[in-house]
Amino acid sequence: MKDRFLKACRREPVDCTPIWLMRQAGRYMEAYRRLRERYTMAQLVKTPELAVEITLQPVRAFDLDAAIIYSDLLPPLEAMGLEVEFVEGEGPVIRQPLRSRADVEALRESDPRESLNFVLQAICLARQALDGRLPLIGFAGAPFTLATYAIEGSNARNPVHAKALMYQEPQTWHLLMERFAHFIARYLEAQVEAGAQAVQLFDSWVGALSPADYARYVAPYSRYVLQAAQATGVPVIHFSTGTGGMLEHIAAVGGDVIAVDWRTPLDVAWQRIGYQRAIQGNLDPAVLLAPLEELRRQAVQILEQAGNRPGHIFNLGHGVLPQTPIEAVAHLVEVVHRESQR
Amino acid sequence: MKDRFLKACRREPVDCTPIWLMRQAGRYMEAYRRLRERYTMAQLVKTPELAVEITLQPVRAFDLDAAIIYSDLLPPLEAMGLEVEFVEGEGPVIRQPLRSRADVEALRESDPRESLNFVLQAICLARQALDGRLPLIGFAGAPFTLATYAIEGSNARNPVHAKALMYQEPQTWHLLMERFAHFIARYLEAQVEAGAQAVQLFDSWVGALSPADYARYVAPYSRYVLQAAQATGVPVIHFSTGTGGMLEHIAAVGGDVIAVDWRTPLDVAWQRIGYQRAIQGNLDPAVLLAPLEELRRQAVQILEQAGNRPGHIFNLGHGVLPQTPIEAVAHLVEVVHRESQR
Repeated sequence: MKDRFLKACRREPVDCTPIWLMRQAGRYMEAYRRLRERYTMAQLVKTPELAVEITLQPVRAFDLDAAIIYSDLLPPLEAMGLEVEFVEGEGPVIRQPLRSRADVEALRESDPRESLNFVLQAICLARQALDGRLPLIGFAGAPFTLATYAIEGSNARNPVHAKALMYQEPQTWHLLMERFAHFIARYLEAQVEAGAQAVQLFDSWVGALSPADYARYVAPYSRYVLQAAQATGVPVIHFSTGTGGMLEHIAAVGGDVIAVDWRTPLDVAWQRIGYQRAIQGNLDPAVLLAPLEELRRQAVQILEQAGNRPGHIFNLGHGVLPQTPIEAVAHLVEVVHRESQR
Repeated sequence: MKDRFLKACRREPVDCTPIWLMRQAGRYMEAYRRLRERYTMAQLVKTPELAVEITLQPVRAFDLDAAIIYSDLLPPLEAMGLEVEFVEGEGPVIRQPLRSRADVEALRESDPRESLNFVLQAICLARQALDGRLPLIGFAGAPFTLATYAIEGSNARNPVHAKALMYQEPQTWHLLMERFAHFIARYLEAQVEAGAQAVQLFDSWVGALSPADYARYVAPYSRYVLQAAQATGVPVIHFSTGTGGMLEHIAAVGGDVIAVDWRTPLDVAWQRIGYQRAIQGNLDPAVLLAPLEELRRQAVQILEQAGNRPGHIFNLGHGVLPQTPIEAVAHLVEVVHRESQR
């Protein structure tokens, strides 16, 4: 097996820097677009055979060092009883967002091994299809990011309703976070049981908070989930964006690997989170739209910032953009492997 | 004159911490909403008497330490020949955004003393109306923020087109930034001539960039504008959001006062930008939706982080939200003055 991704997660020496890309399966690939013409997002996510096919598309096309199961952040919300609708061009929308204590209390208790069985099946089938050639990553949204989606009802630029609930009804907020944390912890455990060899917790929106509010309203729940995931024995990646003002806090909450975005230089970020953690990142996805020479320059700069320290996993700071040329992805993977050879 | 705002900008001792609020005139005030029922945004911005009236509304209602002229970030784009349309519920939209070298070359050369005369008149009239009781702040968008708006055509979450132009056609990018920097420098100079006693440069979107891209594609132009503004002799505030990963770079580019958002604790931010600068910030505007006791707690925490060091101007990290209760604004102003008394 190509094991440099798992080795880097554990900060063991590797022959060259491993690379995978968030949203490495997606609209920038023609094979994916063809499937999207025939199926809705919901069908792709909920049909294990299709999810596996999409999981494999990028690892067939590029020399990536890990596969990540094709899924979405929102199935846990549906499993807990919220109705999520996919609106073309708008993304997922929750018509009846959570706003009150009663809404939170009405959330369904659910065992992810049943309610999200389609994801676990997809993981199981993807492991078989990968046949030990590449490690498979599972993932879930962090409690704050899911709570925010549930409360705002859509991808809000500024999660004002979520913050208002947090300040005005702290007990309701804590109950909600507890419910999500419990569910997500069980969900990640189930993904590992099903065969995920690493998991990533996506706290995509937590950059909207002050460090003090993060510590008080979010950290305990992320910590609970990360500890449960780490207890399974697989490496756990803790991802956030827009958190350049509080990387120390994010790292302190947990994760074997801290994923950082491009808004902080990688060397500064690693120093701040501490060298006892592995680091993942941190190219701006927009750089994949640049001429290949500029793309190479920026990728090499990140490798130089990582130095020869073990424990760097190359990635973007956010998902691959739909308009990304596939040549750019191929070039990036090649540059990272070649320029980091030890 | 209440001079503690200007004194704090120069890091001189003050009797208590001055406070003003970004978007302190706006929809959260009934007096403003009543005017908005009768006039369009464009009418309010372009009629000096109306702009002055709105400028005065918050300083009549609250014990604020500065007035800021009521205007918008986009009139400079119109002055340079772009058509800006205000779409209800969507904000300003540019139907034919800048995308090519030809578009940039077609930008109109314009003297802001003519094309933006309505703003300068409003400043002049507002100074008269304030009659020396309170200092008046002028402002403009920074070249990056304006360029991004001109290229994206709307308030894009991720300015992908702007970044693509930057990477793919750096010469076009640099030409565009030069044109904007030149215009904005002249515009701020004209505002000071008209009577502005301090100016703020809004680089609201620059948090989308990596520090390296900021240094290469943006910093020289912001520096040019900030230096021109500083050469007039009035204090200059350099504002950005989402730049917790590169506060040192923002500060190095210039400004007497560095405005920071809530994503970095104020004490950490001040240490990073250096104590030879004044600092402005940094409450999350959403905290104004909290119960007054929580609002007080968070405001006091910021005052404590500022310590007794001269040069702190209390503000939010972004504009007042439309749903903010006016009691919260009154309470905040009172708490900041009372709890910071020397």
